[in-house]
Amino acid sequence: MEILKQRILTDGIVKPGNVLKVDTFLNHQIDVRLIDEIGKELHRRFADKPITKVLTIETSGIAIACSVAREFDVPVVFAKKKKSVNLDGDVFVADVESFTHKVTNQVILSKKLLGQEDHVLIVDDFLANGYAMQGLISIVESADATVEGLGIVIEKAFQNGGDRLRNLGYNLQSLAIIDRMDPKDNTITFRR
Amino acid sequence: MEILKQRILTDGIVKPGNVLKVDTFLNHQIDVRLIDEIGKELHRRFADKPITKVLTIETSGIAIACSVAREFDVPVVFAKKKKSVNLDGDVFVADVESFTHKVTNQVILSKKLLGQEDHVLIVDDFLANGYAMQGLISIVESADATVEGLGIVIEKAFQNGGDRLRNLGYNLQSLAIIDRMDPKDNTITFRR
Repeated sequence: MEILKQRILTDGIVKPGNVLKVDTFLNHQIDVRLIDEIGKELHRRFADKPITKVLTIETSGIAIACSVAREFDVPVVFAKKKKSVNLDGDVFVADVESFTHKVTNQVILSKKLLGQEDHVLIVDDFLANGYAMQGLISIVESADATVEGLGIVIEKAFQNGGDRLRNLGYNLQSLAIIDRMDPKDNTITFRR
Repeated sequence: MEILKQRILTDGIVKPGNVLKVDTFLNHQIDVRLIDEIGKELHRRFADKPITKVLTIETSGIAIACSVAREFDVPVVFAKKKKSVNLDGDVFVADVESFTHKVTNQVILSKKLLGQEDHVLIVDDFLANGYAMQGLISIVESADATVEGLGIVIEKAFQNGGDRLRNLGYNLQSLAIIDRMDPKDNTITFRR
């Protein structure tokens, strides 16, 4: 997706430790026009699937999920990272290690929000080692629902989560795939 | 906002401890059509203000903020609840006690995302005691930016945060104001 790649090159900042900061347009400030274009592009790539719900994980995935779900005219459901006093015990649970925050979270989704009749598109802002995505897949499988596809804004291919998921047979679409990035001179090399 | 009140009456569940669960349409599953109507209504109520940014706090405010910001054609910025390794030290900070989670969070916003030229509409899903809103106001003031208004989806008036903010002179617009609710028979009484 060309406008996304251009925006990453213009405003993305490569930090040591495989961190790409995109906090001026994607996950701290949100450029709503851009995420609406992202939503349209992800819809285009999965338009032949009978999607009934768009699933993501708090926090950064929510805005993107809403833009995608609007195109499909279906609800968003988002998994939560810690047990809330507002959640009943009747939840699907998965363990997810966070690359960014260096912790393992329990990720939960209320059982009433996903069932075997659902065809799910899972979306997120980043795919790195794929742990968050695997947690979300595990929740969909716990619900006996169908994973129709995985939609990612930025895949950091050198962290191998994407290849692992493709090898498992999932239909993974990443709108920008980064093969290399270097904090010394802020270079970002996209897969062609 | 009539369709919102009807939805709260249909799908909201009153729990002990002043908790209103709206997790089937607002803050766990998200009815995107409904939040787009909420965005249009909040835009209508602040249409005469020169809004440059819509500010909210993770997590539940993000979807609503995006729907409002789309109408104003401005970006969303959302404050984060804990220090992330992705954030530089250059942040505005406010302390916020969470009613739902019974903890005090430090809420932070990168300084580069808000400046004195900004006219800010602050939005959130719930207003109860108003601590989150006061934290967000304090961040806007730290940036020497202007608070143009506060837009809330559901105000729990019996927890007094709304009256306190109105007394301080803020233009607070709540789309559904609940005067009383009772977990014993799940009754919800809206302010007329």
